[in-house]
Amino acid sequence: MGTIITNNLPRPDPKALAGVLESLAARFGNRLITSQAVREQHGHTTTWLPTQPPDGVVLAQDTADIQDVVRICARHGVPVIAFGTGTSLEGQVNAPGGGICIDLRDMNRVLEVHAEDLDCVIQPGVTRKALNEHLRDQGLFFPIDPGADASLGGMASTRASGTNAVRYGTMRENVLALKVVRGDGEIITTGTRAKKSSAGYDLTHLFVGAEGTLGIISELTIRLRGIPETIAAAACSFATVRGACQAVILAIQTGIPVARIELLNVEQVKACNSYSKLTLPETPLLLLEFHGTAIEVGEQSKAFGEIARECGGGDFTWTTKPEDRTRLWQARHDAYWAVKALRPGAGVVATDVCVPISRLADCVTETEDDLKRLNLLSPIVGHVGDGNFHCSLACDVNDPEEMARGEEFMHRLVERAQSMGGTCTGEHGIGQGKQKYLKAELGQEALDAMRALKRALDPQNIFNPGKILPAG
Amino acid sequence: MGTIITNNLPRPDPKALAGVLESLAARFGNRLITSQAVREQHGHTTTWLPTQPPDGVVLAQDTADIQDVVRICARHGVPVIAFGTGTSLEGQVNAPGGGICIDLRDMNRVLEVHAEDLDCVIQPGVTRKALNEHLRDQGLFFPIDPGADASLGGMASTRASGTNAVRYGTMRENVLALKVVRGDGEIITTGTRAKKSSAGYDLTHLFVGAEGTLGIISELTIRLRGIPETIAAAACSFATVRGACQAVILAIQTGIPVARIELLNVEQVKACNSYSKLTLPETPLLLLEFHGTAIEVGEQSKAFGEIARECGGGDFTWTTKPEDRTRLWQARHDAYWAVKALRPGAGVVATDVCVPISRLADCVTETEDDLKRLNLLSPIVGHVGDGNFHCSLACDVNDPEEMARGEEFMHRLVERAQSMGGTCTGEHGIGQGKQKYLKAELGQEALDAMRALKRALDPQNIFNPGKILPAG
Repeated sequence: MGTIITNNLPRPDPKALAGVLESLAARFGNRLITSQAVREQHGHTTTWLPTQPPDGVVLAQDTADIQDVVRICARHGVPVIAFGTGTSLEGQVNAPGGGICIDLRDMNRVLEVHAEDLDCVIQPGVTRKALNEHLRDQGLFFPIDPGADASLGGMASTRASGTNAVRYGTMRENVLALKVVRGDGEIITTGTRAKKSSAGYDLTHLFVGAEGTLGIISELTIRLRGIPETIAAAACSFATVRGACQAVILAIQTGIPVARIELLNVEQVKACNSYSKLTLPETPLLLLEFHGTAIEVGEQSKAFGEIARECGGGDFTWTTKPEDRTRLWQARHDAYWAVKALRPGAGVVATDVCVPISRLADCVTETEDDLKRLNLLSPIVGHVGDGNFHCSLACDVNDPEEMARGEEFMHRLVERAQSMGGTCTGEHGIGQGKQKYLKAELGQEALDAMRALKRALDPQNIFNPGKILPAG
Repeated sequence: MGTIITNNLPRPDPKALAGVLESLAARFGNRLITSQAVREQHGHTTTWLPTQPPDGVVLAQDTADIQDVVRICARHGVPVIAFGTGTSLEGQVNAPGGGICIDLRDMNRVLEVHAEDLDCVIQPGVTRKALNEHLRDQGLFFPIDPGADASLGGMASTRASGTNAVRYGTMRENVLALKVVRGDGEIITTGTRAKKSSAGYDLTHLFVGAEGTLGIISELTIRLRGIPETIAAAACSFATVRGACQAVILAIQTGIPVARIELLNVEQVKACNSYSKLTLPETPLLLLEFHGTAIEVGEQSKAFGEIARECGGGDFTWTTKPEDRTRLWQARHDAYWAVKALRPGAGVVATDVCVPISRLADCVTETEDDLKRLNLLSPIVGHVGDGNFHCSLACDVNDPEEMARGEEFMHRLVERAQSMGGTCTGEHGIGQGKQKYLKAELGQEALDAMRALKRALDPQNIFNPGKILPAG
């Protein structure tokens, strides 16, 4: 699928690069790493895109480190790329034009927790699991869960979401304010801790989802929630994907505040049964989670059970036992590994689209037909409350003919979603892999506006160049 | 308070303006209005800022009209200002540099309702009440309620919110996509109907809250909700503002999904009792609303009642009778008129700030002390679940000494909110009135970024010039 990356950028001028590496070595000593292995690791992506390593990696420990790396790179016009945990899926941490990677994993401190205000201030390298570990004793949690134990800076940068988004929103709804290092090394503050504000342009939301192309996030203020008194998990099988989708539509229209509602197609259920040693009925399946008081959760489960029955659902079972819940959701979280295990040695290409929920059944069904026609293996799992679903295409990366079919499949998937009023990516981002779909989705005028914003905030084009915006 | 407006802009070149008016007359006939009365009406603001009328008003009927007005104004470098219902509070529709106002009231069609997807597509002149009227038969509603029957285009442009925001979010969370006419008359599409997307920079949120300074919104796609099965209203009096705030903090931490939770201070309760012929206890008061099934609403009310008791609340009463609910909330919505009636003939200056909820009791109490010290009358009412509150300062606008005290009060209010980690405006916007507070809140770097965005998307500075960004 080499054709997908269209933007191999020119390499930095060798003299400029040498100047940068010299200045960084003087400033950071052995926190500047240039070994092949570490550089490759930092261009490594979880999935199918070829690795494009940076020329050096700086292990940042505080905001001043970020500022200095940016200043040094800017002085020489050399690219600078932020790195959290490297779990992005569309090549967001690749260095197509070389440059310096700032590894933020050591900037992992929770700086302030405001329990009464349900917010906290953190460094960008704090991971989702570490944050929730930190918060647990105070009865608080951060709800966004993209599966991987990603860093919060990275999650903000790709506008991540995941299984809880149907109730709690995505990173878009849960970042209150950011500090962002701009091209001259100074820091932009985008907001306050107030829950809402009408004070000027929404800089926060401009940097959320910008994939590090407009500056480097050095601090985040994010919203928290109280850990619910009771959590119930449920599973419900359906004869058809359409029945499952109809149940979700009704549940949401009725206002049942479902916390998680995930669709697994038959292939995915089979993969999970096999990998996670479960005995789920091998039909389209909804996995659900309800949060609230014991009475509320009972109400919600009962109400959903009635809707499910109307829509041809069977075997609706729910449980508040932690071990049963964990087992069910562990299987969901292991979906990727379950697909890998279906076809050992194959690569797994993870991709996502998002459509209005009324079109979800059509979109999933047509996608399943396409997979059959193209003789491809790709279980489907979806954050169905948002209309967002993932295909995990298991492909032999050494078979160009199969990879060509895979590429055709992915093109058609995106075109299908867009033709249904949806988007080419609900939560993975554009990175390198989906640049060619932006224009079809939003039009030339939106691309013009995005290019103008990029030029306005990064006139040197040093921040993660070659991402989001197609060349030209 | 003349010092507050610092940006009287230069008038357009008379030749340029004549050229614009001639072209507009040719294109729009009697839909171009230049009478003094109509021009003044379109620069009129609900509150204290002096009127700065535009040079002409065009009654737009469709998107092509907006495009043509923008093209004609751009050709001559003349300002263009969008007008919905004129209910903004910080001078957003004033024309400090003259120019052409586009009145969007006739662009009031609901274009599409997607009940299964809980979204709809509307023209910018649709008002909140008209929209809810249109939706009612389908069991749907749009939850954002700023009090005034504002247009949705205007509400998006000022990032409005109101009493329901604690549960349903603000315009920020409820606009899915926009169409925006840019300076050359072409149209930017900012998103799709998908509930979430990671596809590129978040143009939608850049235009939401931009107060018409980056382009003219010609179409909105917004989120809807199902009308809840049961709605209960409640009132609860507290000995102190601090007790009321503590109850709100606990309710939100516990995850009670309160739909509305409003704080009225003693002065405001007295004003409402007098104006709306009520007998509410004249102490700090919370007005609440709960949405859900009958059982859920009962649960929520019960849970809140317990919290209220712990926090020194008394007289907690709740009702699901529509007439009682209406009576209570009508009193809340009439708060502004109740203040006006307290001091007939006086002007009412409405202003808002928003702080982290843990600081709300401090902020309100210190503000009350300030009012006493300065011998001013200003009842306080707040969307307390968000930490957002309003002062309605009743002043004799012909008494410069009193107005000076009023100005001092407002300065101190903003500084207090900002020093507590809050914002100078939660929902009214910056407009003309609050430009001088932006730098203290977000810093020079944020202002630089906002200016760069403005230059990038409106290089001619024709869209609503003199708003949001202070001159300089």
